[in-house]
Amino acid sequence: MSAVYPENVRLTADGTAVRILDQTRLPGETVYLELKTPEELREAICALRVRGAPAIGIFAAYAIYVLCLHSGAADERQLRLFFARQKAELDSARPTAVNLRKMLDRMERVLDSAAGRPAAEILAALRQEAEQIQQEDIAMCRAISEHGLALVREGDGILTHCNAGALATSCYGTALGPLLLAAERGITLHAWCDETRPLLQGARLTSYELSRAGVDTTLICDNMASAVMQQGKIQACFVGCDRLAANGDAANKIGTSGVAILAAHYGVPFYVFCPTSTIDFSCPDGAHIPIELRDPAEIGRKYFEKPMAPEHVKCFNPAFDVTDHALITGIVTEKGVLRPPYVQCLAALLEGGKK
Amino acid sequence: MSAVYPENVRLTADGTAVRILDQTRLPGETVYLELKTPEELREAICALRVRGAPAIGIFAAYAIYVLCLHSGAADERQLRLFFARQKAELDSARPTAVNLRKMLDRMERVLDSAAGRPAAEILAALRQEAEQIQQEDIAMCRAISEHGLALVREGDGILTHCNAGALATSCYGTALGPLLLAAERGITLHAWCDETRPLLQGARLTSYELSRAGVDTTLICDNMASAVMQQGKIQACFVGCDRLAANGDAANKIGTSGVAILAAHYGVPFYVFCPTSTIDFSCPDGAHIPIELRDPAEIGRKYFEKPMAPEHVKCFNPAFDVTDHALITGIVTEKGVLRPPYVQCLAALLEGGKK
Repeated sequence: MSAVYPENVRLTADGTAVRILDQTRLPGETVYLELKTPEELREAICALRVRGAPAIGIFAAYAIYVLCLHSGAADERQLRLFFARQKAELDSARPTAVNLRKMLDRMERVLDSAAGRPAAEILAALRQEAEQIQQEDIAMCRAISEHGLALVREGDGILTHCNAGALATSCYGTALGPLLLAAERGITLHAWCDETRPLLQGARLTSYELSRAGVDTTLICDNMASAVMQQGKIQACFVGCDRLAANGDAANKIGTSGVAILAAHYGVPFYVFCPTSTIDFSCPDGAHIPIELRDPAEIGRKYFEKPMAPEHVKCFNPAFDVTDHALITGIVTEKGVLRPPYVQCLAALLEGGKK
Repeated sequence: MSAVYPENVRLTADGTAVRILDQTRLPGETVYLELKTPEELREAICALRVRGAPAIGIFAAYAIYVLCLHSGAADERQLRLFFARQKAELDSARPTAVNLRKMLDRMERVLDSAAGRPAAEILAALRQEAEQIQQEDIAMCRAISEHGLALVREGDGILTHCNAGALATSCYGTALGPLLLAAERGITLHAWCDETRPLLQGARLTSYELSRAGVDTTLICDNMASAVMQQGKIQACFVGCDRLAANGDAANKIGTSGVAILAAHYGVPFYVFCPTSTIDFSCPDGAHIPIELRDPAEIGRKYFEKPMAPEHVKCFNPAFDVTDHALITGIVTEKGVLRPPYVQCLAALLEGGKK
C-alpha cells in the first residue's frame, strides 16, 4: 500500500492495544492513539476518532480482542461472559453502521467454535480473526476500486459526500477508491468534495487524503452540489454506505439522499459503494435502519470560534439518512456492480454467499 | 412595527450618515455602525454587514444620498458627475441582487428630472426618494407576508434557506414574513432553517430573528433538508430571491436550487418570495444572471477555530444559484401569488406596471 495512505487502524507492535489515527484532529494534526480500556475504545467510536463503516468493523474486532486479552479470564466460560458484556458495550457506541455489529458477531462465532479450548488458544484465534477481517478489507478495497474505476472515463468529475476513503477502511477506501487508484495510474479524474456538515468529514478528511494522493480536488459546501451539477461539472456521484437493506435502500452520511435526488434530477449516475460486509440482509428496507441522532451542539457551536446560532435555538442533528433504492444507478461491491432490481440481485448474492 | 424586529437600515438622526445593524456580528453581538465615506459604505455591502436584496437596495439609496450630501458639489452638473462615479462604485459591490442596481437607477432618475434646480433642492429630493423606497419596502413586506400566510395552514412546517426576514428588508421580510406575521397573530407554524453555508445566515440570522419573535424554530444543516422532507415535517418551502428573470428563473442564495429539486421530489410546494422590485424584466432567463464568486477561504477557514481543510485545497464558492422556473410552485409578490406559466404573468405584470 502506498505511503500516502495513512495507517488507520491496527494492533500496536506488541499486540496489546489498538492503534488508531485520531481522525478528529485532522487535517491540522496527525496524532496516533493507543487504546486498551473499554472506556477508551468505546469513546473512540462515539467521538468519531475512528469512523467509516469498514474501519469501525475492523476496529471493533481488534478492540474486543484487546479487551479479552486484558480480561484476566481464566477459562472459556469466563471469557464468554466477559465477551458478551464488552460486545454489548461496543455495539451500542453507534447504531447505524452495520459493520460494527456484524464484525462483533463474527468474532463471537470464533468463541462459539472454540468450546473447551484453553483461553490462550481462544485469544490467538480471536486475534487471527481480527487480522483476517482487516486483510479481507484490504482485498475488498482493491476490488471495489477497480469496479468503480471501470464506471468512469478520464477527465470525469466525481462528486463525493462525507469520507469513504482510506481513512474509512484499511486501504483505498470504497467510494474514493477509484479516485485513488486512478491517481496511482496517472489517470486524471476531478474530485468534488461536499464538506459534509456538521462534522466536516469531506473538508477535513476527504479533501485531505485525495489532495495528498495527487487527485485534483475541489471542496464545496454541501449546498453547492446542485450548482456544480447544473454547470455540467459532475459525471458521476460516488458515495459510501453504512448499511444497505435487502431492497437496496442505503443508509449513509446525512445529505446522501439529497445528493441522490439532485443526481437523478440532472441525469448524473449515482453509485453507492457498498462492500458486502455492509449489507444487512436481515433488514428489509430503509425504514428499518436505526438512524443515530447526535448532539445538537455539533451544529451551532462545535468547531466555531464563537457560537454561530443563538444558544436556545433547537437543532435537529441526524447523522445519517436513507437513500431510496430507486435513486441508485448501481451498487458497487467488491464482487462487482449490482444493477436494479436490487431485491433480486441482493437475494442472489445472499444465496451465493451461503454456498 | 414590533420591537422584536431590529432596525436594520436607516439614516442617522441628523441625516448625515447611514446607520446599520452590523449583521456579521450576529447573533453574538448587536453592533450599530454609522457609515458615510465611499469606502465604508461599499465595504458594508461587500462584507455582508448589510445584506438581503431589498435591504441592499434601501441601503444603496441612502448611501448615494449621504455621499452626495458630503460631496461638496456646488451645482447640478457637479452633482451629476459625482453621482455617476459613486453609483458605479456602489453598483459593483455585489453583482447578483438586482435591487442594488435598480434602486441606484431610481435615485438617478431623481437627478434626471431635476435639471437646473439648485443642489440643495436636488439633495432634498434624493433623500425623499430614499425614504420613499424604504416606505414602499415596509408596505411590500406587509402585503407579501399576508399573501404568503394564506398559502399555509396552522401547524405546518416551513423550510427556509438563508435569510429573507426582517434583517433582509425594513419590516417583516419576504419569505419569513408569513412566519413572523403568524407569530403576531398567535398562529403556530414550525420553522425549519437551513444553516446556509458558508456564511451561516440561516443559523446566525434566521434562527435568531424567528426565535426572538416567538416562532417555533429548528436549525438544521443544509444537507438535512432531504431527511426532514422525507420524514414529512415540511408542508412548504419559502425562500427569498435576489433576482428574478423574465421567465421566472430565480437567483437566490447558493443551495436554493437544491431545495427546490428536493421539494419537487417529495411533492412539497416551493414558493419564491419576490417583491416586484426584485424582478429584472431585462433579463430573459437564469443563464443571464451574473453569479457572484466569493473568497474560497470562506469555506475552510472563516468562523472556525482552526482551518477545517488543508490550506492548499481548492474551494469553489458561488454565492448564489439559479432555480429553474419549472421547479417553482408559485412566486409570491406584494401584488399576489403568480402561478405558471411565468413568462405570461410576468409580462402582464410589466405591462400593468407601465400603465
